[in-house]
Amino acid sequence: MFKVDLNCDMGESFGRYTLGNDKEMMAYISSANIACGFHAGDPNIMDQTVKLALEHDVSIGAHPGLLDLHGFGRRNIQITPEEAYQLVVYQVGALQGFVQANGGKLHHVKPHGALYNMAAVHKELADAIALAVYRIDPEIVLYGLSNSELTKAGEAIGLKVAHEVFADRTYQKDGTLTPRNMPNALITSEEAATRQVVKMVKEQKVVTADHHEISIQADTICLHGDGRTALLFAKRIHEIFQAEGIKIETV
Amino acid sequence: MFKVDLNCDMGESFGRYTLGNDKEMMAYISSANIACGFHAGDPNIMDQTVKLALEHDVSIGAHPGLLDLHGFGRRNIQITPEEAYQLVVYQVGALQGFVQANGGKLHHVKPHGALYNMAAVHKELADAIALAVYRIDPEIVLYGLSNSELTKAGEAIGLKVAHEVFADRTYQKDGTLTPRNMPNALITSEEAATRQVVKMVKEQKVVTADHHEISIQADTICLHGDGRTALLFAKRIHEIFQAEGIKIETV
Amino acid sequence: MFKVDLNCDMGESFGRYTLGNDKEMMAYISSANIACGFHAGDPNIMDQTVKLALEHDVSIGAHPGLLDLHGFGRRNIQITPEEAYQLVVYQVGALQGFVQANGGKLHHVKPHGALYNMAAVHKELADAIALAVYRIDPEIVLYGLSNSELTKAGEAIGLKVAHEVFADRTYQKDGTLTPRNMPNALITSEEAATRQVVKMVKEQKVVTADHHEISIQADTICLHGDGRTALLFAKRIHEIFQAEGIKIETV
Amino acid sequence: MFKVDLNCDMGESFGRYTLGNDKEMMAYISSANIACGFHAGDPNIMDQTVKLALEHDVSIGAHPGLLDLHGFGRRNIQITPEEAYQLVVYQVGALQGFVQANGGKLHHVKPHGALYNMAAVHKELADAIALAVYRIDPEIVLYGLSNSELTKAGEAIGLKVAHEVFADRTYQKDGTLTPRNMPNALITSEEAATRQVVKMVKEQKVVTADHHEISIQADTICLHGDGRTALLFAKRIHEIFQAEGIKIETV
Repeated sequence: MFKVDLNCDMGESFGRYTLGNDKEMMAYISSANIACGFHAGDPNIMDQTVKLALEHDVSIGAHPGLLDLHGFGRRNIQITPEEAYQLVVYQVGALQGFVQANGGKLHHVKPHGALYNMAAVHKELADAIALAVYRIDPEIVLYGLSNSELTKAGEAIGLKVAHEVFADRTYQKDGTLTPRNMPNALITSEEAATRQVVKMVKEQKVVTADHHEISIQADTICLHGDGRTALLFAKRIHEIFQAEGIKIETV
Repeated sequence: MFKVDLNCDMGESFGRYTLGNDKEMMAYISSANIACGFHAGDPNIMDQTVKLALEHDVSIGAHPGLLDLHGFGRRNIQITPEEAYQLVVYQVGALQGFVQANGGKLHHVKPHGALYNMAAVHKELADAIALAVYRIDPEIVLYGLSNSELTKAGEAIGLKVAHEVFADRTYQKDGTLTPRNMPNALITSEEAATRQVVKMVKEQKVVTADHHEISIQADTICLHGDGRTALLFAKRIHEIFQAEGIKIETV
Repeated sequence: MFKVDLNCDMGESFGRYTLGNDKEMMAYISSANIACGFHAGDPNIMDQTVKLALEHDVSIGAHPGLLDLHGFGRRNIQITPEEAYQLVVYQVGALQGFVQANGGKLHHVKPHGALYNMAAVHKELADAIALAVYRIDPEIVLYGLSNSELTKAGEAIGLKVAHEVFADRTYQKDGTLTPRNMPNALITSEEAATRQVVKMVKEQKVVTADHHEISIQADTICLHGDGRTALLFAKRIHEIFQAEGIKIETV
Repeated sequence: MFKVDLNCDMGESFGRYTLGNDKEMMAYISSANIACGFHAGDPNIMDQTVKLALEHDVSIGAHPGLLDLHGFGRRNIQITPEEAYQLVVYQVGALQGFVQANGGKLHHVKPHGALYNMAAVHKELADAIALAVYRIDPEIVLYGLSNSELTKAGEAIGLKVAHEVFADRTYQKDGTLTPRNMPNALITSEEAATRQVVKMVKEQKVVTADHHEISIQADTICLHGDGRTALLFAKRIHEIFQAEGIKIETV
């Protein structure tokens, strides 16, 4: 029997502003990454989203981002490793407050946006983030781009790590994602996307953009939570995983 | 042998901006209330101040405030009890992150500024704040204005509570502070201020602005940390307490 | 021939978050109140919304609010008149920057949310806001609740003032709005709402919640821009105004 | 008779936090660059600083920065040229509001920190900033690093430009500043610093870190406003300029 985790970014609304289909998506995922107020989310949204995850028995993760609500945490900011360490401790702590207050347990941490991407390639930032998670609680699982500096840093310090893969992105020969500004970066066919994830889960392999087959560790798949097609794709993945004998389960 | 706690607001710097004499004041207090990023403080300052408190063996408290860096959390904002609950959970959680990461234990929570003042008189806000603290960890001590709605709310829910008194403020017959906009609100004589606190600690009594003696519970005394005279007054209190046989000890 | 201004709050999106139907609503209004970044809006949204208003030949107004993105400027904050003056100068100046850069002219200022409501009843705040507008440019029109402290303050300092009325709110005998927490505060019937505005425009009179007819100055009508029914109501008002011989024109 | 402008960053306090010696420094400079609320400053500080500059007959400039109060605008943020354009329009507009309200005239714009540094080397950002200034008012003077992309962009679009030089930084053969992380980047001797600026002003030449003499355009000199030595150095520059026959005058 094969198994894999399905994770989704959640709680990215803010004050008067609503984003995503959190209530509907909760039914299709095994792990929720909840924004912590720096790139999105606020104390009210965090509280509601933690409650929602507990109701659906979905694993709760903190989703810390750069302090950039205006840019939704997607713009690189030149931070030091120490600053990365501190902003992760702050945000993970804040989310943990809501998890404790609601009687749950914090399961994982997955950095958001530019912080996720920078931590995938910069060893010092990756080490600082892994250290922050480890010091708060060494039992927290660290989610990062499969085979990146972040997953390496987590493994080096002794954290359980979840290697994340994407259904709708193509890969390069070295196992990294094809940059978004390249023509073949995105997989737009739903059929090709589902075929890619089934292969990654069952064979731990992926066919690269230039047609090589490489190894890839696929512990968790990132589902998008926003947009009209997000829910449809989540449903489709469930049907195909059932047919393929793949169990959806948190790491 | 008499004893009392001396507490001081700490970690109220922000980014490039420095406020207070944290390093020097730590030597004179038994409890530090550390700002959590809403009215003052940031992840770096919080981390440094937690470390400083641990080095001095000073009890660590969270000092949550309204989301108003521009007004330093001193302007009333019309928030709902639910919003008060959520902003306390968020900020206490964030500080707890740094306490955990540094191997310490969160000892208390004391609301800041306008939040402190509103919680002293509004039962619903007080109940919400006490609930937030209780749900995060029922062993946390709640600091509030002596004999206020906040201390009542804490006692009602089952928290250990510290009744706070002030050296430099006068009291009214009903045990409340004389409002700051009244002529005799402040005690400017150092000698009168120290006499008032010694009486409060040893007799649990205070002479009001209109010369009545009333009962007052004095578990902890608030010292100011900012300004030129703060350190001098802290030293003076120490000398007098030694002479009077009052031990300084966290609650 | 009767005439009246139709105004609508615009540019209340922020970064990744979208709010309102600005593009569609522009076709139905004569004046746009554009958020300035304190309660909503950001430099990008402001630039786009100014361009949109210029394309539709709609009068451009600044819509300054309290510094409270999290509460969308709807929570009272205890500010001084001096602070009110300064936050209006700042935000009006910022919007004027975009108006100048796009070759337009700033037509009016309408405070938002809690700032609007506080300025309607507090003379000192109202005076401070009127002074801020006057000092930036005495030709700017000040929009405020009909017959409020704000419109009085504008008239006293020598500004042109637009008295604002609401289609979907009931009035009391003293000309103030029935508070939202009272049962008959809102007019939910579209037919009753349109009847009320036609009467206000043509007769400068309104029937109060307790069935008295009082005088009311109706220079401009506030249309809501958010929600599914906003566009439908805007269209309906246009049809009825055409039938009633009421011309829609900025003040 | 030689002449040069002395400029200084001003108004970098925020809310409860004070930074700099604005009142004392005003006596020694001919141009003030006033922070606009993104990296430092707030509506109150801006209003006070504009008044202070008017009292001292000092030219008023806007000093827009990246939206990063926590990092004081010193951390690079990966913004697009369009974002740079918009944040300059917003901040220059906001400051212009205070200048208008106080009866003054906006004289110049000088970007702050990371925005200044990025604009010195990235042509597209430089063009966007120059366009923002030009569109608000083509008579505004643009201050930028001498012979940088920013001064080129200003000249290309038709703005008057002030080439800025530094007393306490060394230069390289290509006319750029020696990066701060290199050993000989800073000039710590006051005597060497004053000698360098006198040579730059009188000969429009500078001796580089590796002992070549190169040409440099020196229209304005940046004085630091913070720290104990700032005022002393400002006084010293005045004495030496008087002795050398150099007149201090805004551009």
